[in-house]
Amino acid sequence: MQFYQKLNNAIESKNSRVCIGLDPVLERLPRHLQQAANPVLTFLEQVVEATQEWAAAYKPNFAYFEALGPEGLKTLEQIIEKIPADSVIIGDAKRGDVGHSAAMYAKAVFETFSCDAVTVSPYQGEDALQPFLEYEDKGTFVLCLTSNPGADDFQVPYDLYLRVAEKVKSWNVRKNCGLVVGATRPGLIQTVREVSGPMPFLIPGVGAQGGDLEETIKYASDGTAIPYVINASRSVLYASNGEDFAQNAGEAAKQLCQSINAAYKSS
Amino acid sequence: MQFYQKLNNAIESKNSRVCIGLDPVLERLPRHLQQAANPVLTFLEQVVEATQEWAAAYKPNFAYFEALGPEGLKTLEQIIEKIPADSVIIGDAKRGDVGHSAAMYAKAVFETFSCDAVTVSPYQGEDALQPFLEYEDKGTFVLCLTSNPGADDFQVPYDLYLRVAEKVKSWNVRKNCGLVVGATRPGLIQTVREVSGPMPFLIPGVGAQGGDLEETIKYASDGTAIPYVINASRSVLYASNGEDFAQNAGEAAKQLCQSINAAYKSS
Repeated sequence: MQFYQKLNNAIESKNSRVCIGLDPVLERLPRHLQQAANPVLTFLEQVVEATQEWAAAYKPNFAYFEALGPEGLKTLEQIIEKIPADSVIIGDAKRGDVGHSAAMYAKAVFETFSCDAVTVSPYQGEDALQPFLEYEDKGTFVLCLTSNPGADDFQVPYDLYLRVAEKVKSWNVRKNCGLVVGATRPGLIQTVREVSGPMPFLIPGVGAQGGDLEETIKYASDGTAIPYVINASRSVLYASNGEDFAQNAGEAAKQLCQSINAAYKSS
Repeated sequence: MQFYQKLNNAIESKNSRVCIGLDPVLERLPRHLQQAANPVLTFLEQVVEATQEWAAAYKPNFAYFEALGPEGLKTLEQIIEKIPADSVIIGDAKRGDVGHSAAMYAKAVFETFSCDAVTVSPYQGEDALQPFLEYEDKGTFVLCLTSNPGADDFQVPYDLYLRVAEKVKSWNVRKNCGLVVGATRPGLIQTVREVSGPMPFLIPGVGAQGGDLEETIKYASDGTAIPYVINASRSVLYASNGEDFAQNAGEAAKQLCQSINAAYKSS
């Protein structure tokens, strides 16, 4: 199935645009899980189970698994297997390399780790992204405007983020590209949307980073049913660190879903 | 030991500026190794043993190991253990993320996988790089001017690559930064050096990608003893795919070392 279709199906069937970032930090897990054979896996399995009703997508961030070494990558494989087929899996890897190395990264994320989509960096240009785009049925979200202060170093000056949006639009011949656009500068989301046209956005920065949800949704939409998803990681994963952590994660996901839908209706 | 010092020691003790990229592709390994318990590990162990006399640095590219899954990452750990302490290990990961995720990538490359240095992407700006730079004794090579055609998409227009060089110079307060500068545009290396001042360069693109060695060395140097290394991957690893592959890899490393030193003397 084409990625846009799969993403759209997930959004429609769950009536949700929530993406849940899977960023497991051993020290932040509930204390009662610390003695489990694999605390990270046990934690994430329960989070996925409790949140799946509202999760159009899950976004495991490779960094947190890599920090745990080969065993952590094994855990990543295992949790990906547990994500239901009606949620999209976005491998948040922010990869970027050239030629054969890029092809190996694409193979790693799409084949070895079975993700439906990936995040990549645009810095090295078109030929560095092509190996990802050649996977017709997989989605590639290109970093465009990130949610951190450092976006002011290179992305915003000279409108680099808009040139990225423009280029990605021109490279999107297979209709499998998307853009990562942070929620912390809603006004700029509008300019990205004007340049990109209809294309999925992956929008981080609403939860712990403080982006404005209503403004974000107002500008990310352009009146058509473009599939975008809004990511929350810590605010869902660590909604509680007691024995009720999974229930609280589910509640946080549900509330985010409802807030997004309310803002969407009024946009 | 500070990273610049470690790199300088490696270059001086071996009288070599060669960096050998470890990019193992299963299909390209010598046929007689295909039946080994771990063909990639056996191959790389023999390459490292045969080339270490001329290798100031080794640069394992994470992409090739990730494509092999958790077992591949285990192989990466094992080959890193086999690299002698007098060669520098540059984890070619081209990572880039924000906040806590960046800290986890830094932990993964520097601690979990015990690399002396890393390659990173500048796209997300200063706060995305700080978690790497906070490792005082580890080196961080920031992508500046890459060796591929796609450098023309974002790096060269508006002189983004020079703004990266300028910013990295200003962030280099702990003297642990370097730049990745491709050999395929020697003229532009000169402009990077003018902006960056003394700072190590990691220079890919000389081997299979066809960069001019003499021009590169002429422009990378500025008369002082700046430690830079020139990377070759495929031209060393796959110098032969017969039973003599390791001997041929050693010979290729030696020849590259001699060519660099000859060009350095005449520069």
